Formats: sequence, structure tokens, C-alpha cells
Amino acid sequence: MPARLAKYVEDNHETILKTLQNWLKIPSISAQPDHDADVQASAEFGAALLTEIGFNNIRLLTNGAKPAIYADWLDAPGKPTVLIYGHHDVQPVDPLDEWNADPFEPTIVNDEIRARGASDDKGQMVLQIETMRALLATEGSLPLNVKFLIEGEEEVGSPTLETMLEQNAELLKCDLIIVSDTGMWSADIPSVNLGMRGLVGYDLTIRTAEIDLHSGVFGGAVPNSAHILAKLVNNLHDDQNRVTIPGFYDDVLPLPEAEKKSFDELPFNEDEFKQQATVKTLVGEAGYSALEHTSTRPTCEVTGITSGYGGDGIKTIVPATANCKIAFRLVASQDPYKIAEMFEKWVGKQLPGVDYHLAPEGKVAPAYTPPDHPASVALSKAIKTVWNRDPLFIREGGSGPEETLERKLRAYCIYLGVMLTDDHFHAPNERLRLSQLWKGVAAAGELLHELAVLPTSALAYK
Amino acid sequence: MPARLAKYVEDNHETILKTLQNWLKIPSISAQPDHDADVQASAEFGAALLTEIGFNNIRLLTNGAKPAIYADWLDAPGKPTVLIYGHHDVQPVDPLDEWNADPFEPTIVNDEIRARGASDDKGQMVLQIETMRALLATEGSLPLNVKFLIEGEEEVGSPTLETMLEQNAELLKCDLIIVSDTGMWSADIPSVNLGMRGLVGYDLTIRTAEIDLHSGVFGGAVPNSAHILAKLVNNLHDDQNRVTIPGFYDDVLPLPEAEKKSFDELPFNEDEFKQQATVKTLVGEAGYSALEHTSTRPTCEVTGITSGYGGDGIKTIVPATANCKIAFRLVASQDPYKIAEMFEKWVGKQLPGVDYHLAPEGKVAPAYTPPDHPASVALSKAIKTVWNRDPLFIREGGSGPEETLERKLRAYCIYLGVMLTDDHFHAPNERLRLSQLWKGVAAAGELLHELAVLPTSALAYK
Repeated sequence: MPARLAKYVEDNHETILKTLQNWLKIPSISAQPDHDADVQASAEFGAALLTEIGFNNIRLLTNGAKPAIYADWLDAPGKPTVLIYGHHDVQPVDPLDEWNADPFEPTIVNDEIRARGASDDKGQMVLQIETMRALLATEGSLPLNVKFLIEGEEEVGSPTLETMLEQNAELLKCDLIIVSDTGMWSADIPSVNLGMRGLVGYDLTIRTAEIDLHSGVFGGAVPNSAHILAKLVNNLHDDQNRVTIPGFYDDVLPLPEAEKKSFDELPFNEDEFKQQATVKTLVGEAGYSALEHTSTRPTCEVTGITSGYGGDGIKTIVPATANCKIAFRLVASQDPYKIAEMFEKWVGKQLPGVDYHLAPEGKVAPAYTPPDHPASVALSKAIKTVWNRDPLFIREGGSGPEETLERKLRAYCIYLGVMLTDDHFHAPNERLRLSQLWKGVAAAGELLHELAVLPTSALAYK
Repeated sequence: MPARLAKYVEDNHETILKTLQNWLKIPSISAQPDHDADVQASAEFGAALLTEIGFNNIRLLTNGAKPAIYADWLDAPGKPTVLIYGHHDVQPVDPLDEWNADPFEPTIVNDEIRARGASDDKGQMVLQIETMRALLATEGSLPLNVKFLIEGEEEVGSPTLETMLEQNAELLKCDLIIVSDTGMWSADIPSVNLGMRGLVGYDLTIRTAEIDLHSGVFGGAVPNSAHILAKLVNNLHDDQNRVTIPGFYDDVLPLPEAEKKSFDELPFNEDEFKQQATVKTLVGEAGYSALEHTSTRPTCEVTGITSGYGGDGIKTIVPATANCKIAFRLVASQDPYKIAEMFEKWVGKQLPGVDYHLAPEGKVAPAYTPPDHPASVALSKAIKTVWNRDPLFIREGGSGPEETLERKLRAYCIYLGVMLTDDHFHAPNERLRLSQLWKGVAAAGELLHELAVLPTSALAYK
């Protein structure tokens, strides 16, 4: 069965690309204050586009920060309401000299549109908006209620998203969140992302003396903060690369059969992965594959160490302080607060009699929607209709705003994303495959129809 | 038996202090280029002083760097030649607001002269120069041949000393070096320093990837340079705080009975030491005391670690590189080249298949003159005559230019130093106890007489 919107999309390639190109020309880099006006212009462009396709209640949500775009179409009484989430801000473009063309002068080459933001995330927002335009044009209405939330500071870590969700709780109320900001395994192997990892961060400083001490006068007899920290860091993992914190793995959900099967079928190429990571070897928790290490298993990484002298040459001191940063990635259904408690207790036992300061640096719970959840099933069906193949299940290794969206809006996230891993998002020469974009519009249309037949109660949040 | 110069010194307190005060007024800070003219003026002051007391061949040795003062008195044919070593440059004075008076306006309060350089090292150079003046005044000649080498850049690590010694080999030729730049246990407990520790430094950088990697995308599967370095640092010591490098302790000379006895008698107060070091606990190689850890035992200290992100908050990366600085302190008769070879081999075994760069950062051999060496015996006798008590033996924990002097001049160093540990050298409110100065002059006079009766052959270098 061909997808409902396939023909419409084919007839409208040019106008859809024109729209995307115009949005991509606006350098909405949220990390750089001198682009604040561009972020504003980008928000206004998105708002105008949503007005043009017939959406209502258009507004820019700011809370004094960079504007998010809100719009809705709520003319399907009794039907579920979905909120489509993505963002219109983009990453910086450095190093500029590695781009083959101006990052804000979109070019179309063969099956690609190339520009900063092409895949992350303006391309995927155009995918969703043009889906709505197509459905309204071909069917006269949408099969359910739709809200858009297109953020303006996702690339700087969504610092005000939580407040925005709280302050606009009624406006943003929904039964399901469709995130369009992730990727697929490959153009040939469609996949469905089931979740994001959680994150627990810490900043640990050990102090052994008031000042750095002369290594000749005191060295050998006084505690060395760098030695103590190195021991603690070394103790974080055992010789099988398992995290040693008691209880750390207790709440990790066993992998459902459907995901196990997908992992067996996914053609993961270790050599390509190593090349991509620029590493010579792979390591990781014994008994699991690199694919699992980076998506379905929790991890603990020291992300920085600073102690004593770090300049040229050598300074003969015993460092009085040693600092490290530690980032845990969590998977369903680990609780960041429980993990934090375990870690703090563990640190105390590692440092008896040592002065230290342990500062939390954020807690994000993992987001996970099981493969047999009705919304996941609907998404899989929609993708199969378009790609003509059952999608495999994957999970993203990173941690985004999804758990915040779920927790605050009390609705699950599902992920309709068409980016491919080699689309250079966050890097020079970012691109989006046009075939992925066209299929994505068709799949988004199918998805709304699949969801529309579900009773709202089937989408209830845990 | 009272010391020969006791009466002379008593009769000349005022003029000796006047001389010292005038020298101390010159802010000869070698670390600060805007004091270059002061270092020059200080060298000229010392040269004039040596001329005034009747020394010959006065010259400033520069090699283009900050000037050292040379002078000699060689009218004792057939007698040994001693070279007296010290320095006329001083440490910077920061933090200035912690000084109770202008650091370059010497004040005399009770038994102290207070100023930058009072004990380190102008006071001890005046001690030696005034000894010569006193001997010439009271006896008409010196009992042996004497050369002075008063360096101008000791406080910046004697960067050109080795070249200076090579270029002036004939001029500086001697049978024994008397260093006057160290301290004594206390005013009541005279002591003889027998040596300095050696030093081997390294800068180690581990690289696991070309760039820092995203901890969500790659974390858990790729090597983390910070983890690898932490393991290496942790492996440097065993659980008894012994250095684990095979062969590291092989060449450590057993402590002679005389030193063992001294160590038992020295009233080392652990609480005072902890307070001085601003630490809560002491650690160190099992089976040895803190006094031994800091003087007669070799050590290994990591003096700095830098990896990944060290700023505020946290950055979710897997660090591609990790650097550490390592400083070994060596004791007689460890060979820095042998230790370096052992360490490099050990690092290789710790990092199989890991890319790393290991850069040597200096090698200094330990300096050590045994307690039963004729010159040590002569020094002990001289001190006993003045302090009326057998001195105890100690060793300095730091590493100075003494090994370079010994190796290049092929003569042993002995150490006549009267500084006390609480004289605030390198710190605000530096001072010298006048009673130590007067006793020092008397002891220096006795020492020359003790040495003069030795055959030159008794001083032969190893």
C-alpha cells in the first residue's frame, strides 16, 4: 500500500525545498549572542510558516530567553493530541574553512541539501510542517489534534525548557510527544529510536593541604591529592570495565526480545565505528557489544581531571587539590536520584578522613518508550508503509530534553527522525538526504493516521 | 675550648651587621627582569666587600646571565683549596602585604635581622666573608686557600651554572666545596647536613583519540585517556606506599650507623610537621618515618594532572588526551639515568597499545658526603667547638646545584648552614637569628683550621 502523501510530496518537491532553503539561510546560532537577532528572525520565520499552513494560536514563547515557536490545530474533538517537538536554533559553524560552501547558503547536490541546520533540525521541522500542509491540502483536516513546540535553545542545552513547560502547562498539554530530532540507522535500514540515556554529573574536589607543598621538603610524607584522586578514578571500574558502585546496575531493565532481535540484525561495523571515533581499540563493559555500550548500557566516564601544575616543563610540588568531573549515562529504568545517592555514599567510603567537596552537576532521567507501546507500534507501522521494511529498534546514547518533556507534560515521547549518522550534524558540511525527507513526510502522515485510531487512554503516561 | 674568632666577633657585631644591612637593602630578585640592575648592583657590592677584606682576582662571571661573584685568597701553598658557594640573589617578596616591614629595609629586633635575603643567602655569605676578614685580622693569613663563588641566579634554578663551571674550570678548581645555603635542626640542636636529594622529572601525555569524543555517542565503548592515566598513576605506588617500579630501591645506600643514631635522637614532632605542611595526616613508605620520607628515602610524586575539561560545570566528553608530571626524588647512590631507564620501561609495560609521549624534564643526581668523610668530621668538630655539643646528622630533602658543583669541580660538598626552619626563607618576614650568625662565623673559622691539617689527598673526589 503506497503512503497517503507520496504523490503530494512528489508534486511539491520544489516548493518544499524552497521553504527549507529560506529557513536555512537564517544563521540562528543560539550559542553566540551576536546571532540573537537571527534566532529571533528564525522563530518569526517558523511562526509565519505555521500561520501560512493554517495553524492557530501562533506565539513565541520566551521567558526572556531565545524564543520557541508554538502553534496548534485542535479541530479533532475526541481525538488524541500530539505535540511535535524539535528546534529551530543551530550549532556554531567553526571550523568554517572545512565547509565546502557557505553554511548559510543552502545548496542542493544530487540527493542532498547542504547547510547548517539541514538535518539538525530545521529540515526535520519542515518535514513535520509540510506534512500538516499536505494533510490539510489533500484531506481537508488532520486526523487528530496537533501542537508544535519548536525550541530556540536546544543546541545550548535547553536551559529554560523546564520553566517554559511549567509556565505553559495548559497550552502544551498533550497525550503524546513526537520528537523529530533524531536519526535512523541508514537509508536502507529504517529504524525506530526508543529512547535517550539519562545523565548524572558530578564535580569532585579533593583537598589534602592548604597550599601546594614543596615536593623536596614535604614529598613522600604528606598526602598527594593527585594520587588520591587517581586511586578513586581507577576504582570506578573493575578489570572487566564494570562500574563498581554497589547497586549501580540493579534497576537496568532487561532488553526486551524485540530489541535483542534488532541488535542481532543491525549491521554494526566495529572498524567503521573505530574510524569514526578516531580510536585504535574499543573497550567497554564485559559481555556487551560496542553498540550496547553506547546505547542500552549505563556508563561512567571521567570527563576531566585537574590537579597541580599543568603548564610547560615541571613544577616540583605536591598538589594540594585535585578535581575531576564525572558523567554517568543511565538507561531505563535507572533513577538519577538513586544513582546519585549510591555514588555519594561510594565516594565517602573511598575517601575516609579526606577533605572533599562533591557538587552535583545535573540529573536527567532516561527516556524510554518500549517497542510494544501502542505509539511505538504505530510508528513502526508508519515507517514500514513508507520504507517497505520492518524498522529495527535502536536507542540513542545521548541525553536530550526528552525526559524533561515527558516528566513535565506527562506523556511519552516517540521519535520520528530521518537524519543519518553521516549527515555531519554539529560538524562542517551538514546535510540532509532528500529521499529521507520525502519518505519522512509520507511516514509522518501515516503516523498521524495510525495514532488517530488509538483511544486516548492507550497513550496514558506511566 | 672557646672558638678562635669568638672574641673578634663579639667586638665587631655592629660593623658586621652594618655590612649585612647594606647588602640586604639591594633588592636583587633574580626572577624579575625589572630587578636586573639590582642583581648587578648586588654583585658589585659583594665584589667590593671581597676586595675590601683583602681577597684577589675579583671578577663577575656572567656568561650573559645574572652575574656571579668570584674572588680568591691563594697564599697557602701546599694547603688544600676550598671553594665557598652561596648566592646573592633573592626570592620575590609577594605577598607584600604579609610583611611586617619593608623587605628591603632591614630591621633588627631582639636576636633577629629581618629582610628578604637575611638567611637565604646574603646573611650566610656575610658569615663567610666576615670569617675571612676576622682570620686575616687576627691571624694575618688564612690557614688554607679559599675561593668564593657567589651565584646570582640560584633562586631561578641556576640555569647557567653548569656552563659557568665548564667555562671557568681552571679558575674554580678546588679540593672541597663549602656550601653555606642550608639550615640547622634548631638553635639548641646543631646539625650537619650530609647531602641533597636528586631529581628525575617526566612529562607524560596519553592520547586515545584525535579529538575529545561525545560521552553519549561514544562513551562506554572507547578508551578514556583520563581512566588510563589514573590507573597508571595509581600503579606507581603499592598499598604500602612503596614505589612499584622494579629495581627502584636497588641502589639506595643503607643508612650509616651515625645517621641512624642521629635520626633516633632528633626530636621530630609529627604534629608540628603536619601543622607546618597544613595537612591532617601523614602518609609515606611503610617502615620509615616522616623524617626519613623527606630526606633519606627516594620518592615519587605526581605533581600535576590535566585531562579533558577543567572549567566550571561539566562537559560531557571522553577526553582524548591526559597529561601528568612526575617528579622522583633520589638519594645516594641512585643514578638518575638508571632510574629514568627503569621508569621508561615501566611506563611502556603499563600502556600496551596506547599512544603516549614521555618527555624527560631534568635529571639531577643526589649529592652525599658520608658522616665519616674527613671533611664531615672536620665540620662536626668545628660545630662542636662552638655549640658545645656534637651535631646530629640530617639530609636536605630538596635538590639544589650541589651535585652539579661536585660533578663539574670534582670535589665533595660539605654544608655549613645556620638558617633555622622557621626563618621564613622564600616567605614573608624572612629573618636570620643573630646568635646563629655569630656562632656561624666562629664555626667557619674553626672549620678552615680543621681542614687545613688534612692532607689534600684525604679530600679526593670519588
